[in-house]
Amino acid sequence: MNGLKEKVLTLDTMNPCVRRVEYAVRGPIVLRALELEQELRQGVKKPFTEVVRANIGDAQAMGQKPITFLRQVLALCVHPDLLNSPDFPEDARRRAERILQACGGHSLGAYSVSSGIQLIREDAARYIERRDGGIPADPNNIFLSTGASDAIVTVLKLLVAGEGPTRTGVLIPIPQYPLYSAALAELDAVQVDYYLDEERAWALDVAELRRALCQARGHCCPRALCIINPGNPTGQVQARECIEAVIRFAFEERLFLMADEVYQDNVYAEGSRFHSFKKVLMEMGPPYATQQELASFHSVSKGYMGECGFRGGYVEVVNMDPAVQQQMQKLMSVRLCPPVPGQALLHTVVSPPTPSDPSFAQFQAERQAVLAELAAKAKLTEQVFNEAPGIRCNPVQGAMYAFPRVQLPPRAVQHAQELGLAPDMFFCMRLLEETGICVVPGSGFGQREGTYHFRMTILPPMEKLRPLLETLSQFHAKFTREYS
Amino acid sequence: MNGLKEKVLTLDTMNPCVRRVEYAVRGPIVLRALELEQELRQGVKKPFTEVVRANIGDAQAMGQKPITFLRQVLALCVHPDLLNSPDFPEDARRRAERILQACGGHSLGAYSVSSGIQLIREDAARYIERRDGGIPADPNNIFLSTGASDAIVTVLKLLVAGEGPTRTGVLIPIPQYPLYSAALAELDAVQVDYYLDEERAWALDVAELRRALCQARGHCCPRALCIINPGNPTGQVQARECIEAVIRFAFEERLFLMADEVYQDNVYAEGSRFHSFKKVLMEMGPPYATQQELASFHSVSKGYMGECGFRGGYVEVVNMDPAVQQQMQKLMSVRLCPPVPGQALLHTVVSPPTPSDPSFAQFQAERQAVLAELAAKAKLTEQVFNEAPGIRCNPVQGAMYAFPRVQLPPRAVQHAQELGLAPDMFFCMRLLEETGICVVPGSGFGQREGTYHFRMTILPPMEKLRPLLETLSQFHAKFTREYS
Repeated sequence: MNGLKEKVLTLDTMNPCVRRVEYAVRGPIVLRALELEQELRQGVKKPFTEVVRANIGDAQAMGQKPITFLRQVLALCVHPDLLNSPDFPEDARRRAERILQACGGHSLGAYSVSSGIQLIREDAARYIERRDGGIPADPNNIFLSTGASDAIVTVLKLLVAGEGPTRTGVLIPIPQYPLYSAALAELDAVQVDYYLDEERAWALDVAELRRALCQARGHCCPRALCIINPGNPTGQVQARECIEAVIRFAFEERLFLMADEVYQDNVYAEGSRFHSFKKVLMEMGPPYATQQELASFHSVSKGYMGECGFRGGYVEVVNMDPAVQQQMQKLMSVRLCPPVPGQALLHTVVSPPTPSDPSFAQFQAERQAVLAELAAKAKLTEQVFNEAPGIRCNPVQGAMYAFPRVQLPPRAVQHAQELGLAPDMFFCMRLLEETGICVVPGSGFGQREGTYHFRMTILPPMEKLRPLLETLSQFHAKFTREYS
Repeated sequence: MNGLKEKVLTLDTMNPCVRRVEYAVRGPIVLRALELEQELRQGVKKPFTEVVRANIGDAQAMGQKPITFLRQVLALCVHPDLLNSPDFPEDARRRAERILQACGGHSLGAYSVSSGIQLIREDAARYIERRDGGIPADPNNIFLSTGASDAIVTVLKLLVAGEGPTRTGVLIPIPQYPLYSAALAELDAVQVDYYLDEERAWALDVAELRRALCQARGHCCPRALCIINPGNPTGQVQARECIEAVIRFAFEERLFLMADEVYQDNVYAEGSRFHSFKKVLMEMGPPYATQQELASFHSVSKGYMGECGFRGGYVEVVNMDPAVQQQMQKLMSVRLCPPVPGQALLHTVVSPPTPSDPSFAQFQAERQAVLAELAAKAKLTEQVFNEAPGIRCNPVQGAMYAFPRVQLPPRAVQHAQELGLAPDMFFCMRLLEETGICVVPGSGFGQREGTYHFRMTILPPMEKLRPLLETLSQFHAKFTREYS
């Protein structure tokens, strides 16, 4: 070995749970997209002039403008010298002063308490109450977080215990957002898949939940049920009756409910409406309302604001054992606090301008414009895909994604397998290389055996979205011909 | 049970590793401090008018003003409409434009790549090169993080493997910063204590490292060695020869080195100088320079900037197995990205104004003022404590803390034990109740059996620090009389 010692930390000696983690949304296809962008910058000739990153729900990267009021307040908080500037509306200044008053040393640069600034948790509680038609929310049950991901992982961490057949199992939808599978792999918990019904617009079916649960019992101890509503990557918005049925199921089967509701403002389809798990739970009355454990997650990254970079979010816990809640608080305190600028931004979201405020009209107009454009893009996406032979797309009722099913010719499937690639990964890689369009293969989210999908965001600007959808459909046709 | 089901998640069913986590810096004493503050606000009569939180290194909460240039740049990034404002110096505007150019959609609201914005990693590499006298740094070995804590936990996560006698052991100093013990408990790794030598100003002794390692082998597999330099809570600054000896030890014993260097700008004592592990390692030449694995951590929370709330930081890895480094990248991608405002702030720190920039003079003056005041406070703290009988304080050579040793009368120790409290927790609780001074008991950091300490920050403003130190010394005298 020439005096060369082997490394201490190698693939063989490292944490095997971390090795098992996969995260498709930023996986190999995105690394390749980055390379292609670099090649384009270096002047390498490609059959396209630009890589379009439709792989991740990153609205501002796709050109969406920040909401003015949010950024005005934040700039004032960051640099309080501006508080005397006449360039800012009076309500933005008032708001920034209120936030700074609640900060240590009146500065965003101080740590906050680990669960987040008290004022912001109080106003988040009022926000939830307004959303839920007056059902009370307790600020002490709200924990601010570093994006929703952080809070989701924290709650999963609390739930993980046992070994062998008593290891914690967590039910997650398939297709899922791969944070769930990644976190469960890292925590060495058992992922229990329940399938959403593609034939019924990705609806959640309690019989399927029961099947998954029964099959899991015996080789693990299922203790939690995750729901993503509106759905990622499915775009499905759950009906109220469905939510009731899920709650009854969780109650009977003694499952902790985790409701990922980060797309609660992103509902577009006629007849679809967002119902929060908390509201439905409370309206079902005892014993559900008084006993069923629930954690609901929200974020500033999605909705109309799309402020992903600030990593703001929160979780509200309902009916959690107070002793466990103390443990959660302790666990969060080890990381000190969520980023304070993200907390401040969250404050403007949970407590937006009201009709008497000078910023109200502009705020409303900007908010509505974003949501209306998203609704139009959701419709267009579904429509163009469904015109293409071999592509079938459920309605994008909410969230920010289409998850169309693509037929892939058997020869393409075989060819992919020879390359050691999932067939839809092969399709998406070819798509990227030939068109510059970056989408994520369905295999990264999970799908029924023998079906193939991809997830595409509806976020590119309207003038780019239509040609993009058409290019994609045409590429699929060409790909199909090539391998037929 | 009256129809009442037991909760799914209870102290008995929750993650036992999380239950074992302790984090004294935000432990029971801080919760009590919060209650006292609330009582004061409600007009409850106390023997003090204000709670002084000397428990946590939170400079701005203690009144330190943010550095103007940092906040100007950040305000411009947050609200680019300000870029045309004449109220900002030209270099701040130029800088903000440069940062925004490197952001997705030219906005802080877009996700960055998971390892952090390329431009910032490049400039962090140049910063490290300047610090280390020209020794090269590779931006691809730098990962931005959510404060240093996040990066430390990520590296520990990679290292954890095995079960029973092959479980990963990690050597940490005693006294330590309790992030380490908390993370190791959560990850179910084995904490291996090595004691710093209080009699020699908390120096690190390789013989003691060897003792700890030998004792640990057999019941775990020690694979990493953590160093905190400048020391938290000790305030010790390591000599170059000591660092060399530690590196030789780690190399011979095949330990991954983790150097927590977040206080690298906080060195006050005459004759003390900060030597980075990276620089010493490289100057030692092969085989150390070419083979010894190292991770070095830094943060925007400490130094002269004290921007704790922004949660900015980075880790530089050296000689890490490239395949493991890829795994680290993957693991970080699950949490999407570190907060982008913290990344932007880090850019101003790694690339501060240069002499030809309009902001240079003010930046330098502000930076020097903060560091000079900290140096004066470090000296004062040591001096006042050492004048008090029964208190002995090592020089505060660096960082932001004193960790004095206090003699506690046997009757007080006995009384504490009857209450089920660590004796120094009892002392600190009484101190808080009677004086409003919040410090953290030494038992939260670890100390030799039968010795008692507390950690106090040197951050209160000068006009408050002297009376605070005197009050504390007087309280100790009174406490000693009371229990003698």
